[in-house]
Amino acid sequence: MAVRSEVNIEVRYYETDLMGIVHHSNYIRYFECGRHQALIDMKMPIFEVEKRGFMLPVVSVECNYKTSARMGDVLKVITMINDEPMAKIRVENRIENAATGELICTGAVVLGFIHSDSRKPCRAPEFFLEAFRAFNK
Amino acid sequence: MAVRSEVNIEVRYYETDLMGIVHHSNYIRYFECGRHQALIDMKMPIFEVEKRGFMLPVVSVECNYKTSARMGDVLKVITMINDEPMAKIRVENRIENAATGELICTGAVVLGFIHSDSRKPCRAPEFFLEAFRAFNK
Amino acid sequence: MAVRSEVNIEVRYYETDLMGIVHHSNYIRYFECGRHQALIDMKMPIFEVEKRGFMLPVVSVECNYKTSARMGDVLKVITMINDEPMAKIRVENRIENAATGELICTGAVVLGFIHSDSRKPCRAPEFFLEAFRAFNK
Amino acid sequence: MAVRSEVNIEVRYYETDLMGIVHHSNYIRYFECGRHQALIDMKMPIFEVEKRGFMLPVVSVECNYKTSARMGDVLKVITMINDEPMAKIRVENRIENAATGELICTGAVVLGFIHSDSRKPCRAPEFFLEAFRAFNK
Repeated sequence: MAVRSEVNIEVRYYETDLMGIVHHSNYIRYFECGRHQALIDMKMPIFEVEKRGFMLPVVSVECNYKTSARMGDVLKVITMINDEPMAKIRVENRIENAATGELICTGAVVLGFIHSDSRKPCRAPEFFLEAFRAFNK
Repeated sequence: MAVRSEVNIEVRYYETDLMGIVHHSNYIRYFECGRHQALIDMKMPIFEVEKRGFMLPVVSVECNYKTSARMGDVLKVITMINDEPMAKIRVENRIENAATGELICTGAVVLGFIHSDSRKPCRAPEFFLEAFRAFNK
Repeated sequence: MAVRSEVNIEVRYYETDLMGIVHHSNYIRYFECGRHQALIDMKMPIFEVEKRGFMLPVVSVECNYKTSARMGDVLKVITMINDEPMAKIRVENRIENAATGELICTGAVVLGFIHSDSRKPCRAPEFFLEAFRAFNK
Repeated sequence: MAVRSEVNIEVRYYETDLMGIVHHSNYIRYFECGRHQALIDMKMPIFEVEKRGFMLPVVSVECNYKTSARMGDVLKVITMINDEPMAKIRVENRIENAATGELICTGAVVLGFIHSDSRKPCRAPEFFLEAFRAFNK
């Protein structure tokens, strides 16, 4: 039981820096795009989570850069949730050049559930677990 | 009766692009920094405006670029509100290199008052006009 | 004789602000995405222009905001170059909600040709004019 | 022998997101601001490194978020290089609320030296090691 999702993203000019390559902070943003797509694929988009009174702030992030992406490149952002969420969700990411398959970076992001009202941490709500379990069935 | 405010901003690496210069969209963001400082100088910071039930979305923006800023440059963002706000506020901006005084760009941003609840446009609230009139007294 | 191009762009989470809507500076960036697509459609992508020794810095930008875009919205960015470029190119933009057709903003960006080596302004190079004239033939 | 540097950064409006807090990707950018200040404090700013024919791309990044920063907050970005650079430099970061001292996040960034011309990895150049060793003397 796991979630796996893919989405393609085109690098934009203003995301590149002086070195002519995508600024390293942007991959963290691409991870987020991939993560939001994964939630959509789970039929539980982030809006819906928020509407039901929960938020999912980022607890930690890590990224290992293998090679660089350049303007105009199309990137395949692969998102995986391998373990059933508890109080936290661990999301793994892998970004490849969509045209060549070359690995660009890998990473992982941990998110924590909190109640929107109290801003207190909590366990993954049941509706979220159901969406997770229903994936791939 | 007018508001005039200045704030210095340091260019950050990720704000520059492939050409080695600040991406043109960032000056629009610097204008916002200047505008927020002007509101603080008016003793009416944007938080306070929002807390009192109003929002100030941007209606239009224009910017004329004279020369470029580079990483590490310190920019002086000058913000002027020359006319008493009505349903809209016109904010004029001028960005100079703080070290050399060289003119980098000029621009203007028009904002409109709206009620946060109804999201309907409205006239500048009295507390805002008082803050505007009290400036420089 | 004119260039017209369209490209769809999906709003990303980090492009929205406190008000839940796309930060106004990002539309300036979407204009750039549209402009780059227009150059690709002219078979003269910005890379190619730069490789041939020219740069196209932004001289001025203006944007009029009609309504707001939100996260997850798909935007249709329409780009038009109605006049043959001289020393400058005037690019007009229009952004619509791709699903509903609602107008989100309109704007115009003026770019100037410069030689990469001398950084001096110059007339539009012949290869660029040919690409412009060949469009739609 | 170690490098330690501090710089204050003010949170800007467009760096906050829907939740009213700084978007998590921006701390990675603040780390970069801190890192560049550390290089300036070492009298070896990144420009100078680049001018001498070397680049310092990011190899990996990690960040652990403790609490959130909001618009208008002033952040103290603390940067530490505890070990003499080899082919890589490990830079540790800590961001605190400058007013309250509250810990906001911690992180580490690893950079690798490469020759600008060949884009091949290399050992830390002697001039860089000298700057590192001269710090705090």
